[in-house]
Amino acid sequence: MKQFINPNFMLGTKSAQKLYFEYAAELPIIDFHCHLNPDEIVEDKKWDNVAQVWLGGDHYKWRAMRSNGVEEKFCTGTETSDKEKFDKFAFTMPKLLRNPIYHWTHLEMARFFGIDDVLLSPDTADEVWTRCNKVLNEGLTARSCMKNCKVEIVCTTDDPISDLSAHKKLRDENFEIKVLPTFRPDKTHAVKNPSDYIAYISKLSAAAGIEIKDFDDLVTAIKRRHDYFHSMGCRLSDNGLDTMFYAPADEHTLNTIFKKAMSGQCLDSGESDKLKSAVLTACAEMDAESGWTRQLHIGAMRDCNSAMFKKLGPDTGFDSIGESNYAAALARHLDDLNSRGKLGRTILYNLHPKDNEMLATMLGNFQSNLCPGKMQLGSGWWFLDQANGIRAQIEAFSQLSLLANFVGMVTDSRSFLSYPRHEYFRRILCDIIGREIENGSIPEDYELAGRLVSDVSYNNAKSYLRLGV
Amino acid sequence: MKQFINPNFMLGTKSAQKLYFEYAAELPIIDFHCHLNPDEIVEDKKWDNVAQVWLGGDHYKWRAMRSNGVEEKFCTGTETSDKEKFDKFAFTMPKLLRNPIYHWTHLEMARFFGIDDVLLSPDTADEVWTRCNKVLNEGLTARSCMKNCKVEIVCTTDDPISDLSAHKKLRDENFEIKVLPTFRPDKTHAVKNPSDYIAYISKLSAAAGIEIKDFDDLVTAIKRRHDYFHSMGCRLSDNGLDTMFYAPADEHTLNTIFKKAMSGQCLDSGESDKLKSAVLTACAEMDAESGWTRQLHIGAMRDCNSAMFKKLGPDTGFDSIGESNYAAALARHLDDLNSRGKLGRTILYNLHPKDNEMLATMLGNFQSNLCPGKMQLGSGWWFLDQANGIRAQIEAFSQLSLLANFVGMVTDSRSFLSYPRHEYFRRILCDIIGREIENGSIPEDYELAGRLVSDVSYNNAKSYLRLGV
Amino acid sequence: MKQFINPNFMLGTKSAQKLYFEYAAELPIIDFHCHLNPDEIVEDKKWDNVAQVWLGGDHYKWRAMRSNGVEEKFCTGTETSDKEKFDKFAFTMPKLLRNPIYHWTHLEMARFFGIDDVLLSPDTADEVWTRCNKVLNEGLTARSCMKNCKVEIVCTTDDPISDLSAHKKLRDENFEIKVLPTFRPDKTHAVKNPSDYIAYISKLSAAAGIEIKDFDDLVTAIKRRHDYFHSMGCRLSDNGLDTMFYAPADEHTLNTIFKKAMSGQCLDSGESDKLKSAVLTACAEMDAESGWTRQLHIGAMRDCNSAMFKKLGPDTGFDSIGESNYAAALARHLDDLNSRGKLGRTILYNLHPKDNEMLATMLGNFQSNLCPGKMQLGSGWWFLDQANGIRAQIEAFSQLSLLANFVGMVTDSRSFLSYPRHEYFRRILCDIIGREIENGSIPEDYELAGRLVSDVSYNNAKSYLRLGV
Repeated sequence: MKQFINPNFMLGTKSAQKLYFEYAAELPIIDFHCHLNPDEIVEDKKWDNVAQVWLGGDHYKWRAMRSNGVEEKFCTGTETSDKEKFDKFAFTMPKLLRNPIYHWTHLEMARFFGIDDVLLSPDTADEVWTRCNKVLNEGLTARSCMKNCKVEIVCTTDDPISDLSAHKKLRDENFEIKVLPTFRPDKTHAVKNPSDYIAYISKLSAAAGIEIKDFDDLVTAIKRRHDYFHSMGCRLSDNGLDTMFYAPADEHTLNTIFKKAMSGQCLDSGESDKLKSAVLTACAEMDAESGWTRQLHIGAMRDCNSAMFKKLGPDTGFDSIGESNYAAALARHLDDLNSRGKLGRTILYNLHPKDNEMLATMLGNFQSNLCPGKMQLGSGWWFLDQANGIRAQIEAFSQLSLLANFVGMVTDSRSFLSYPRHEYFRRILCDIIGREIENGSIPEDYELAGRLVSDVSYNNAKSYLRLGV
Repeated sequence: MKQFINPNFMLGTKSAQKLYFEYAAELPIIDFHCHLNPDEIVEDKKWDNVAQVWLGGDHYKWRAMRSNGVEEKFCTGTETSDKEKFDKFAFTMPKLLRNPIYHWTHLEMARFFGIDDVLLSPDTADEVWTRCNKVLNEGLTARSCMKNCKVEIVCTTDDPISDLSAHKKLRDENFEIKVLPTFRPDKTHAVKNPSDYIAYISKLSAAAGIEIKDFDDLVTAIKRRHDYFHSMGCRLSDNGLDTMFYAPADEHTLNTIFKKAMSGQCLDSGESDKLKSAVLTACAEMDAESGWTRQLHIGAMRDCNSAMFKKLGPDTGFDSIGESNYAAALARHLDDLNSRGKLGRTILYNLHPKDNEMLATMLGNFQSNLCPGKMQLGSGWWFLDQANGIRAQIEAFSQLSLLANFVGMVTDSRSFLSYPRHEYFRRILCDIIGREIENGSIPEDYELAGRLVSDVSYNNAKSYLRLGV
Repeated sequence: MKQFINPNFMLGTKSAQKLYFEYAAELPIIDFHCHLNPDEIVEDKKWDNVAQVWLGGDHYKWRAMRSNGVEEKFCTGTETSDKEKFDKFAFTMPKLLRNPIYHWTHLEMARFFGIDDVLLSPDTADEVWTRCNKVLNEGLTARSCMKNCKVEIVCTTDDPISDLSAHKKLRDENFEIKVLPTFRPDKTHAVKNPSDYIAYISKLSAAAGIEIKDFDDLVTAIKRRHDYFHSMGCRLSDNGLDTMFYAPADEHTLNTIFKKAMSGQCLDSGESDKLKSAVLTACAEMDAESGWTRQLHIGAMRDCNSAMFKKLGPDTGFDSIGESNYAAALARHLDDLNSRGKLGRTILYNLHPKDNEMLATMLGNFQSNLCPGKMQLGSGWWFLDQANGIRAQIEAFSQLSLLANFVGMVTDSRSFLSYPRHEYFRRILCDIIGREIENGSIPEDYELAGRLVSDVSYNNAKSYLRLGV
């Protein structure tokens, strides 16, 4: 049997191999969107066993195990041991053929644990368990994971109320990898649950040092936190949105709506849309004024399983792809900003694959000479961060915009083991370009094609995001 | 010229050939969703000529002929002869290159009639006509078609009012192929045409032996028929839906709506949605309580050509792919069932290909330890039951769920000659897996990959559906 | 380095090469949908330099340059020289790898200017500029561009108020290439801006020689222009629509709405939909009665950037893919026409790629014996007129209808250099068919497959459109 994770994994042609090894493999990683816990970098997190690092908090894998009929106690339960959980994961692994987890797991086994001679399965579970744990015990930690993968910068995802103490500590100790915050103001307009919202606004008020009585105060408080994040090196914002809204309203209306929400009443959808729209716009203006890059993640349908939500809370594997027709609202939102000179660097991520082409053409309406590729289609997000999703995003970006300006891959991950996804992305990119060199649709000019590969793999993120590397 | 239907048809690599012949070709067929007329199995239907078996009742082929400008009289007319119809079909065949009918027709010619040395065209029409008819006259019948293809079980599609007399006869004679009914309650909530609905409810009342005065009675009547179907071996239900609705209503409201419908008045869309939603939910609960597998076929737009509908009625080739954004309604419907412990085995089929990924991720919200792959994305349905549709469904299932648990192919057909579609599906599946073994994205482990192929081709249907084989 | 634009460009197999050179390459071009200015054919337009012919008025290229951060003055400005603009285009070119402009540009360099030995880039900009200009100065003109490409017929896009004087002149001088008008009545129902609408109706009134006081007069005026266009050889209409509407209204209502619009008031969306729906229906009837082919281009979202719209007006590169669920409205519109015997030859073009399959199945609801393939899915339109879009359209047409009846490619272009897009389309078509001959999914019968290639490349347009060649 041919070795599965071999040097030419996913590289289907000689040209692809040449491109990967000469133009991509050695480049550092700028992982500008992830969900790592920065405290775990401060403490240089260690793990007792591979189940902790692989399965703890990883809702992708829980979902896969549940899909294989595995009982919940082996996913999130406390009554089962780490080894029992690992065995259930190993039991599920052969069923994951063609799922990205199959590739990711074996890449992680090879890259972090040096295991490229066996496939994970019930038959090999004990061996893999033992060999991985040996490496962990020998000192694989959060920081060494990052260093091994040549990570240069990571941008975490942070609430405006965060004091960014972990980021501060890392900066103060001059940690060789830049760990920067990202401003994620979703909760500042999360009015669905009034009591949660009131509680949040109270915390925001405390963090900003300002009493929040009306909409204007809300914006001021957000702005103060925005300024604080900026002072901490933050140069990106991120917004998670079910769909896009554009519902302009005057200040009086916004104050009335905000006060209604703060009185504990539920907003109707028209009111809620207006408030969200106004906060989004205000935040976008701050981003543009500060020269930040703004990210919009559009289209998740979250917490679909109410029974499990009650039991486990959010981000536990019960979300899926939503659908809505938001092209018009997004166009108006961007046009509103653009017409007032407030549209800065923007990356649009979609969760429904049908939206790839719609967004890829939307970009072209609002490009400018601020920089090449000011408007970007983000890399395949969440469910689309897999071979087909990556390929489809690259196709849309290529055919409908300028792939060579693409700012590239992010892990979007909670795990320190996820950096091989950059390798995975780069291999797929090189496979695409290499195949086309061989079939003649791209000129056989390795300087030209290699430049594109290097730029998308690393250089564009560096020049576009201006994170001070 | 290379033989068209040769042993390696659709098998593009050595690995694909190995997988197909070693792990798929010899397996029996469980065709758990079709529209065969069970009376024709009882009588062991015979045909005078190949036009009867190929063109009689086959609206796919009528559509193709109409698309080629063929007059209606050669499709559904009674004033033209079978040979004339066949000649128009042969005239259309060369225009069908790349359409699934081209592949299906030549597979059927090869598998049932032993004709693999000519292509159907006007030039060969007489020869094919003669050779096919000879085989028919020598005794190719409904039952021998099924036996030749190693069919083990078929599940027909039956209205709750059916007495299932044909199924009973087949059971009583111990026919070696299991012919089981499927419960299809569409008409129990088909309120669009009030007089048709009243007439139907009257028949349902008679079949169930209960007077149906209110919504509760309606559910009781359905439940009685559900029980009867269960006693006849039924283990599947099926629902054909333009879109998905979730519109909860209390019993009083439902009674009012039901009585309005039964008084001959048209319901407005809000009322109709509530009634449909309630009936769907009630039926889903019955399915879960009985351990059945529930199928939802979502997204057809039917009877689009009113002139032809008046002339020929439904299911005559004038339907197409509808579009609606039903992710939210479907999520709520499934969540409602799940939160009450009433969500059993469920197979979701979509007609719009854009919905593949949305549904494939929806599955993951509601999996459980009831069995591996409790929630399934059904095989490419109707217009999507063709090479691209099959590939796209397999991709979505693979990347977003666990392909190895896929319950596999169904013919969904009215024809006894359609079983080669299972062969077609298996060849495409092996082509996909085999190609990836050769390009290295799947490990070169034939036991692992072959197991997946066998499971998807046959074993999963057997274990998942629990039809008592 | 292998020559980029070589004889086998895009032809990945021997079979593809055979098909292209034996069945496609030598066929003339019927370009039945374009936006050429017929006056430029009359005057036999000449260009001082390649920037004028490549960049003047080409919003595709402006968009690409803006996407690369190029300042607007190098796209549409008057303060920059042609050479400066060309240099910015050359600067952008390497970034366009995988974008159709990369292919089109190099095809145009090879076919019109004989440059197939260098790639356009900043390094080669001066050389390409000089060599292209030499060819232009030696006499490459609008007419010679067309003749060099074996163009047989072009159909321009014309407003009903046009006097078609250019078409008349070309007819009178017996220009060897037929230049026919296409009737595009979009402005007859463009009620969004009341003052523009009133002004337009006044011009229409003058052109038709009838006072337009009510809806009936409007239809009469349109019909008079329709008749005039018919007398000038017009056999096609075209409709550009954001989405599809079907909103029947009686004559009284339509008169009320029309008069409201003509009084300068804004219509609400219900009123506007009714007026649009009625005009569309009236025009469709005229098309059917005159035996014309009707084209619907559905789904653009136009003029998304209001700041640039104010500066540059429409069609300057600020449009993108819209999205709406219009299947039901389109089905009802077509059914309404069909049920009254008024549905003639119809070509449906979609801008959102998700609609390929929906439309490809919609066709089948309304085919008839008027001719083979009466209902057509148009070739990849605008943003979809690129390698992936062309392939996806061919797949949908193939699997869901009869590709062999496809009426084929159009440039949809404003440029005399765009005819190589027909070559590009034919090469892709042959690549698809050739690959399938080699992998066995199409029989190795070159007469059969070659017939399809020739028909789609040329013969079908000739027989279907009946433009009097």
